[in-house]
Amino acid sequence: MNGANALMQTLMANDVDVCFANPGTSEMHFVAALDATEGMRCVLGLFEGVVTGAADGYARMTGTPAATLLHLGPGMANGLSNLHNALRAQSPMVNVIGDHATYHRHLDAPLTSDIETAARPFSHWVRTTPDADSVPLDTAAAIREARRRPGRISSLILPADAAWNEVRSSSVQAPQAGDPQPAPLDGEAVDAVAALLPRAESPAIILGPGATLEQPLGAAGKVAAATGAKLLTTTMTSRITRGAGRVPVARIPYPPDQAATFLAEHDLIVLVGAKGPVSFFAYPDRPSVLWPRTAQVVELARPDHDLTEALDGLVDALAAGDATARTSPLELPQRPSGELNVAGLGALIGSLLPEQAIVVDESITSGRTLVAETETARPHDWLVGTGGSIGYAMPCAIGAAVACPDRKVIVLESDGSAMYQPQALWTAAREQLDIVIVLFANRKYKILHNEMRNVGVPAFGPKAQALLDIDNPAIDFVALAGSMGVPASAVTTMDELATALEGALAEPGPALIEVRL
Amino acid sequence: MNGANALMQTLMANDVDVCFANPGTSEMHFVAALDATEGMRCVLGLFEGVVTGAADGYARMTGTPAATLLHLGPGMANGLSNLHNALRAQSPMVNVIGDHATYHRHLDAPLTSDIETAARPFSHWVRTTPDADSVPLDTAAAIREARRRPGRISSLILPADAAWNEVRSSSVQAPQAGDPQPAPLDGEAVDAVAALLPRAESPAIILGPGATLEQPLGAAGKVAAATGAKLLTTTMTSRITRGAGRVPVARIPYPPDQAATFLAEHDLIVLVGAKGPVSFFAYPDRPSVLWPRTAQVVELARPDHDLTEALDGLVDALAAGDATARTSPLELPQRPSGELNVAGLGALIGSLLPEQAIVVDESITSGRTLVAETETARPHDWLVGTGGSIGYAMPCAIGAAVACPDRKVIVLESDGSAMYQPQALWTAAREQLDIVIVLFANRKYKILHNEMRNVGVPAFGPKAQALLDIDNPAIDFVALAGSMGVPASAVTTMDELATALEGALAEPGPALIEVRL
Repeated sequence: MNGANALMQTLMANDVDVCFANPGTSEMHFVAALDATEGMRCVLGLFEGVVTGAADGYARMTGTPAATLLHLGPGMANGLSNLHNALRAQSPMVNVIGDHATYHRHLDAPLTSDIETAARPFSHWVRTTPDADSVPLDTAAAIREARRRPGRISSLILPADAAWNEVRSSSVQAPQAGDPQPAPLDGEAVDAVAALLPRAESPAIILGPGATLEQPLGAAGKVAAATGAKLLTTTMTSRITRGAGRVPVARIPYPPDQAATFLAEHDLIVLVGAKGPVSFFAYPDRPSVLWPRTAQVVELARPDHDLTEALDGLVDALAAGDATARTSPLELPQRPSGELNVAGLGALIGSLLPEQAIVVDESITSGRTLVAETETARPHDWLVGTGGSIGYAMPCAIGAAVACPDRKVIVLESDGSAMYQPQALWTAAREQLDIVIVLFANRKYKILHNEMRNVGVPAFGPKAQALLDIDNPAIDFVALAGSMGVPASAVTTMDELATALEGALAEPGPALIEVRL
Repeated sequence: MNGANALMQTLMANDVDVCFANPGTSEMHFVAALDATEGMRCVLGLFEGVVTGAADGYARMTGTPAATLLHLGPGMANGLSNLHNALRAQSPMVNVIGDHATYHRHLDAPLTSDIETAARPFSHWVRTTPDADSVPLDTAAAIREARRRPGRISSLILPADAAWNEVRSSSVQAPQAGDPQPAPLDGEAVDAVAALLPRAESPAIILGPGATLEQPLGAAGKVAAATGAKLLTTTMTSRITRGAGRVPVARIPYPPDQAATFLAEHDLIVLVGAKGPVSFFAYPDRPSVLWPRTAQVVELARPDHDLTEALDGLVDALAAGDATARTSPLELPQRPSGELNVAGLGALIGSLLPEQAIVVDESITSGRTLVAETETARPHDWLVGTGGSIGYAMPCAIGAAVACPDRKVIVLESDGSAMYQPQALWTAAREQLDIVIVLFANRKYKILHNEMRNVGVPAFGPKAQALLDIDNPAIDFVALAGSMGVPASAVTTMDELATALEGALAEPGPALIEVRL
């Protein structure tokens, strides 16, 4: 058995059975090993950002790592921006990055680069496996690290000769990675929070990623019912389980002034796997820290704790086990009609969201009413860009759809963002994934128009304007999607959008709707 | 004057007057400074790979750096793979990478990452400017480093507060970067080569990037005429000036067996800004080093020397000043007719190549006859992918067209490669650049079919096959180009291709021709 086969066996033995891939020459033995391995699903992306973004989406929906297969330094580099998002989403992931054969590296052939250094800022764990014999245990170590709480990014660099050489029979061929346990519950922190909450005038609990799924939200809901605490989450939480029947949690607004106002009332802020809220960017003469200076900030649990256990512990310490958590009712917004406008988009999407939809939101400025108007929609999951790297949504949707083939994935996309990784459309078509992309086309980087003003540039001339507008030429997203095999249509009224969205949701496979604002 | 304006002034004062950009919030002051600066041309790319690839193409054609404007770590990460190509092309470049305000970094907001570490493997010089006062001199240092021979990649990280704060008037506002001189000519090396060449049975001179332009080729041609040396260049040389009237130089073949056979006859190999040739990848049981073990390998000049000066010195040492260099005659290949086939593509392109065309070649397996059949075509420049990072061609063409608005740029592209950075089409349309893309669509990663066999996998099953084929769904490049405003057509015979190419070359602005093989 060669190293590539041993790698594949170790992945399979540890239930890593999906691989998003864009392979090259140095990964050909890995590709050949695919055919020898029953049960490994391999999904091709035409660009590596699609590959890593898909693994992020897969991890968000399953809590378990997929593998990626990337081609040396530049192939990995193309995937780094979505690795950044995945890292911020706390998504577990096992990257396999092919490299030159060990004895070829010192020759500095054209494709040679320092892969370890480039991987490090976007990975928790980086290792170059030195030879075929080391592949099984290094692969297991990569998986183990990916599984450590909160989810972590492992990057295993696999030299070509480590893939093609035989593994000596004395090496363990498919070792178990094990399941690293979370840090033990911090009882003192639980007691402190339980003591502080009832005394606070206006407490808030900020739930980080991992605490916004149904089970921990249930516990947080009891705490809120017993103490009057508000349940908040960071602006960019990887996944929120929400809609009818779920405990609602309010996202801290993105604009720093709104966020500061939103948080101003609180005298106690409890962090549950979250950091104290700071503004996304700094702005001249405005504070970066968003919470009131007079508030007390305490940590119930770190991200590497089991957040559900911590919240359950808090429920017990408050004797709130019998409290009734407030949950969202099912109240579908009235479907708007007539002219398309940003204000009405939220109600329209909210009215049509199917049961158990997975929403991947990258609607930026077009989406400002979406979150509010979907709170009482049918139960669903809501995913957002966690690291601020643009273009994550369509790749992320690929992974979510692979993870959850029985659910509809709805991408709320903006035109500027869509152009970062449009290649995801091709993978959606090839795999016939149930993804409906609602693409809001305002033909500008509208958020940057706002940000110009925020940073103190009130007016700008034609050269600056040209860098913020993408209307020349206008992009025809119907043609773009069609070119990659995704059926598409364009709409210019609310009614057309409703009809197109209902139609797309009723059909299997991918579709794109260009919403011409 | 704030830091952003000082940066802009320093760029302009040092003749860096083209900026390829994909800005975000942290770069808004830089964008605002554009309008205050006369003469700076700013070109928007919808994806950062387009931005860095364009700066590479610009540098290859001008020998001088353009600036790029990139948005924090992930924005830069999206441009790294084309930075890798640029680094291998020895293209000078000044990257300006926005970062959070200095006082915001420790808060670890979502978009925070270690930009310096990520930039380092793909840059020769990395610096974070600490404050506005440091901007002028740091910018000058970045330009100076980019100009150092051979061309180098400078990455200047600009925190938002260094951009928006005022520069104290005591700071120099637009310092001169100066022009670093090449390493002094190594006279002993020149004498040694002059002594060895006439004694060798079968000498070869391998010309690296910078030695394959018209002037150094002229000198190399005299050396060849006087000594019988063969003139060779590496497989992936950034730019070769060739065609009728130019001294021909043979590229070392990519397949390692062919390359070894090609080099086998030589007992002396002279390196002129080149390294000893090694195979692009390692393959099991085959040597990585391509030159015969019995050959003597000597270095005339390093890449940081003035290669023209070194070759002129060699001409003098050989007293070959009156030798007549062999140049290519003008002999246009006969234009093939009838069925499309890879074998005939070279003759067709060669027959139609206009005077002073800039060819950007990423035709991979479809292009195997292109180089040979264009050797006696009208004079032109030939650019190839230097670092093996796929998808460089259309971005590189953007920069070449901006650099040389009076010349036609012809991209010889393959379908798999085109899908890495298709966003370049939009910039070509917006800027109405004279770029004709001839896109060879075989609907597979054909090179990987070959490479599977080369690494010892003779047959592969359906899962491996699915990772190497891109025919499901087939990509409609006519629709794809049209979606971004580039007029396009598809051809299925040699005659249709000839007609379409003649038509596209006769019109200003971009065009794409999908060649359905």
